[in-house]
Amino acid sequence: MPHLFLHRLAATSANQLVRRRGHVYNAIRYHHVLSTQRKNIPHLITLADLSQSQIYNLLRSAIQHKYNAKYAGKGSGEPLKGKTLALTFSKRSTRTRVATESATAYLGGTPMFLGSQDIQLGVNESLLDTAKVISSMADGIMARVGPHSDIEVLAKYSSVPIINALSDKYHPTQILADLMTMHEVFGPHPDTDSEYISHLHHPKDFLPGLKVAWIGDGNNMLHSMLVTFPKLGIHFSAATPQNYQPDADVVEIAKKEAENSGSELSFTTAPKEAVKDADVIVTDTWISMGQESEKLQRLKDFAGFQVTMSLAEQGGAKPDWKFMHCLPRKSEEVDDEVFYSPKSVVFEEAENRKWTILAVIDALLVKKSFD
Amino acid sequence: MPHLFLHRLAATSANQLVRRRGHVYNAIRYHHVLSTQRKNIPHLITLADLSQSQIYNLLRSAIQHKYNAKYAGKGSGEPLKGKTLALTFSKRSTRTRVATESATAYLGGTPMFLGSQDIQLGVNESLLDTAKVISSMADGIMARVGPHSDIEVLAKYSSVPIINALSDKYHPTQILADLMTMHEVFGPHPDTDSEYISHLHHPKDFLPGLKVAWIGDGNNMLHSMLVTFPKLGIHFSAATPQNYQPDADVVEIAKKEAENSGSELSFTTAPKEAVKDADVIVTDTWISMGQESEKLQRLKDFAGFQVTMSLAEQGGAKPDWKFMHCLPRKSEEVDDEVFYSPKSVVFEEAENRKWTILAVIDALLVKKSFD
Amino acid sequence: MPHLFLHRLAATSANQLVRRRGHVYNAIRYHHVLSTQRKNIPHLITLADLSQSQIYNLLRSAIQHKYNAKYAGKGSGEPLKGKTLALTFSKRSTRTRVATESATAYLGGTPMFLGSQDIQLGVNESLLDTAKVISSMADGIMARVGPHSDIEVLAKYSSVPIINALSDKYHPTQILADLMTMHEVFGPHPDTDSEYISHLHHPKDFLPGLKVAWIGDGNNMLHSMLVTFPKLGIHFSAATPQNYQPDADVVEIAKKEAENSGSELSFTTAPKEAVKDADVIVTDTWISMGQESEKLQRLKDFAGFQVTMSLAEQGGAKPDWKFMHCLPRKSEEVDDEVFYSPKSVVFEEAENRKWTILAVIDALLVKKSFD
Repeated sequence: MPHLFLHRLAATSANQLVRRRGHVYNAIRYHHVLSTQRKNIPHLITLADLSQSQIYNLLRSAIQHKYNAKYAGKGSGEPLKGKTLALTFSKRSTRTRVATESATAYLGGTPMFLGSQDIQLGVNESLLDTAKVISSMADGIMARVGPHSDIEVLAKYSSVPIINALSDKYHPTQILADLMTMHEVFGPHPDTDSEYISHLHHPKDFLPGLKVAWIGDGNNMLHSMLVTFPKLGIHFSAATPQNYQPDADVVEIAKKEAENSGSELSFTTAPKEAVKDADVIVTDTWISMGQESEKLQRLKDFAGFQVTMSLAEQGGAKPDWKFMHCLPRKSEEVDDEVFYSPKSVVFEEAENRKWTILAVIDALLVKKSFD
Repeated sequence: MPHLFLHRLAATSANQLVRRRGHVYNAIRYHHVLSTQRKNIPHLITLADLSQSQIYNLLRSAIQHKYNAKYAGKGSGEPLKGKTLALTFSKRSTRTRVATESATAYLGGTPMFLGSQDIQLGVNESLLDTAKVISSMADGIMARVGPHSDIEVLAKYSSVPIINALSDKYHPTQILADLMTMHEVFGPHPDTDSEYISHLHHPKDFLPGLKVAWIGDGNNMLHSMLVTFPKLGIHFSAATPQNYQPDADVVEIAKKEAENSGSELSFTTAPKEAVKDADVIVTDTWISMGQESEKLQRLKDFAGFQVTMSLAEQGGAKPDWKFMHCLPRKSEEVDDEVFYSPKSVVFEEAENRKWTILAVIDALLVKKSFD
Repeated sequence: MPHLFLHRLAATSANQLVRRRGHVYNAIRYHHVLSTQRKNIPHLITLADLSQSQIYNLLRSAIQHKYNAKYAGKGSGEPLKGKTLALTFSKRSTRTRVATESATAYLGGTPMFLGSQDIQLGVNESLLDTAKVISSMADGIMARVGPHSDIEVLAKYSSVPIINALSDKYHPTQILADLMTMHEVFGPHPDTDSEYISHLHHPKDFLPGLKVAWIGDGNNMLHSMLVTFPKLGIHFSAATPQNYQPDADVVEIAKKEAENSGSELSFTTAPKEAVKDADVIVTDTWISMGQESEKLQRLKDFAGFQVTMSLAEQGGAKPDWKFMHCLPRKSEEVDDEVFYSPKSVVFEEAENRKWTILAVIDALLVKKSFD
């Protein structure tokens, strides 16, 4: 609701507000509330906004940081010394929070976690007011919101970079971790576990041509894959139940990107169809936070959508297919056999949340560009 | 309640406790609980405790830090490296918390936020015990309390500096931000937004002689202005409804300070009277956290107290009057037209929370003096 | 419940899972979920796992750090720069949290507090999954858990050091603070409060031969003392009510250690018996978090167990006995006269939580060994 009001307000310019009542104000040069909608500040709202090469830049940076920190034992040089990254989270989170805080610390900065119980966001204060206040003191904001329009309002009024840590429409940082994991898994491997060679290879040589199959809800995870995978030339098929389709505008973006890159894109309600020739099978919870009341109906609607060895085999997934999941996981969407098997790369995927978020922070707060 | 007990206990000295039961203890040199009420540790409990020149020192330091960090791109030299500032907050907060954490980070220190749900303060443990424990491990404490006596107990038993982040009587760090904003607004302006020249001028040349009008409740914000503005030679008038007068002891302090400085000081129940010739009109919420049950009565009692363009015009405020508010704001006390107009400097005021709190932390934890 | 499942799962090896369904997977070198149960990572789960000399190493390190930081004004050299210590706390805490966060900050690291309301631990996610995820991003985990088996599961699946910040069976970091305080109190004293000389003396010259009397519940605090004090040659007697005995396996450990070191060890239900010749009388709350419903019964069962001057006198404690308590304290288990008297070293004990936890972090995350 607050953002609707804001859009209306923004449309009425300050000058109009002033003239409307016939007042004459002396000109002041001091900063003005509505005019401070800063331009040219880079944000990460959705990967739909980034070019192929900008996405690859983030992946390569993430992979290089992982190598530096974990295998070469190098520090970061602390480019964020004295800087603060605010984490404004309207919903609880483990992975995103731990990834962001540990990445910020590695870069020498100070993470500041502001949960919904800690701050007044949405309780006593409009989103515009909070955006202006926090962005005037912190050096960046990682925001987990409900409605996607909230993250757009934050970006509009913030004077510092905004990173979308999850909205009801997109989850861009998760997809970066998925892509990085796919590069590590399907690119060349080192001889031993203590080595790392993924930074010696470019993901553009290993990601295009892979096939990913989504088996699950038409949610923010599916949306994020749709705006990203076809753009990179990754084949993609999505199986969702009849009434759980992805948003039409997102499907449109995916179709255009697939046309551009020549990747295959398909939609179905039959999981077995979707997994045909898949290198990766990926799903997510069927019942997200806030949807608990729909649980019974959803369990019924998603019958047959559980990821199992037998689904992959019957559907004809590639022999060395891998399983991905953004976690936390419940057993209805994937059984223990798959989840705890060598096919599952969910924990590597989780760790890579740290390195990819680190690359995003580095791009936005240090390099100030995705290029 | 706990502090009452503590005061009684403190009155009974350790020696009396010992003698009362006729025990003879061997002399020990080890630290003793009641004797560690440290002396000579500077605290910020209320600006009533600071001299004119100490307040100006804080303002000049805040303004210099803002210039260094934001316009000159200078680091702080990290004087708080390895140090921890505890934030013990009994109520939720956005501005104070973000300001304090980002200021501490800029100085190289580590903020440690302890909300009422995180720690045992007031649940299982007396305030004395908590004060002694936290102050033995942290290097400073920023405390948001209910009763003002709580902050006094903390200061009495703490072995490190205490900063009052808000009590039911005073809110000193907010007033510092107000003064800094007034200096920026009414002092000389730069030619462009990307410049800053306020640090080249002394606030003592611009603040005295301004007039501030308070339109609102007789609360901790009004109290804080009363003990500060007259002392600095700022004229001050307060309009409060009949039954919402400020505390008599605070009014006494204000009268004495006004006499000393020669500033004008007036109290009224008529908002229009108060705003006459005002440079600044300032208000605050009518319904603070914890007063929600009184909402209907308060809305009735504060009828006519909403800050509007028309109130300012009819009352005869100066043509270039500015609006201030400590936020968060509700529309009953100030309408959208004023709040989102160029007259409103509320977001500059909010940002200055960071720089003034930074100056306080620097004074107490680094310089160890307000002088 | 989750750990039961995990143990069962771990018993079924990945290979068995694979073979059970007759699948043939191509060999992959990529990290595998169950095989990453890392070896040779040091943890602090209970002091029962440490040798006498390892415990002394921790104490001496803690004492030296206190001297360096507090009396010599030395920094740490920031060995944890860029590193993160996660604090996963299932219960609220003041001392342990403030101690851990301030110690981490002193070492240049970033503490990351994850309360039960912040993360999904135990809500949506198994302990195994959370252990793997957090340990893949943070550099160490300080965990406050309910069942002791939880901390064992964390240690089993974590790829970074785990520190037991409290479980229902053991509280090892508290005992280190108790030992450090005993060394400061019973070892040589400086001439003035501003000096510190405890680091010039080895605790092995002052701790063995002291007698500690526990008057209270057969809880995790008593367990921790039982596995530690006899091992160091400290005489120990425990008075607990009839139905509040310590666990039999812990008593067994204590008996063996007492035999090895030659220290005296006794159990009784009579507080006066236990305090005979005691140098230290120590207790803890009778009603821990989660036991509030048993309050009336417990108050009845612990009648006569309150620590008072008269109990100490009648039981024949040494004239200069000292009182210790891990806090927070309620008056039923120790009266105000003792608690706020010079005999009470509870606040020194609390402060030493910081230095001993600092020594543990230093051993595990920096030196990577207790030796």
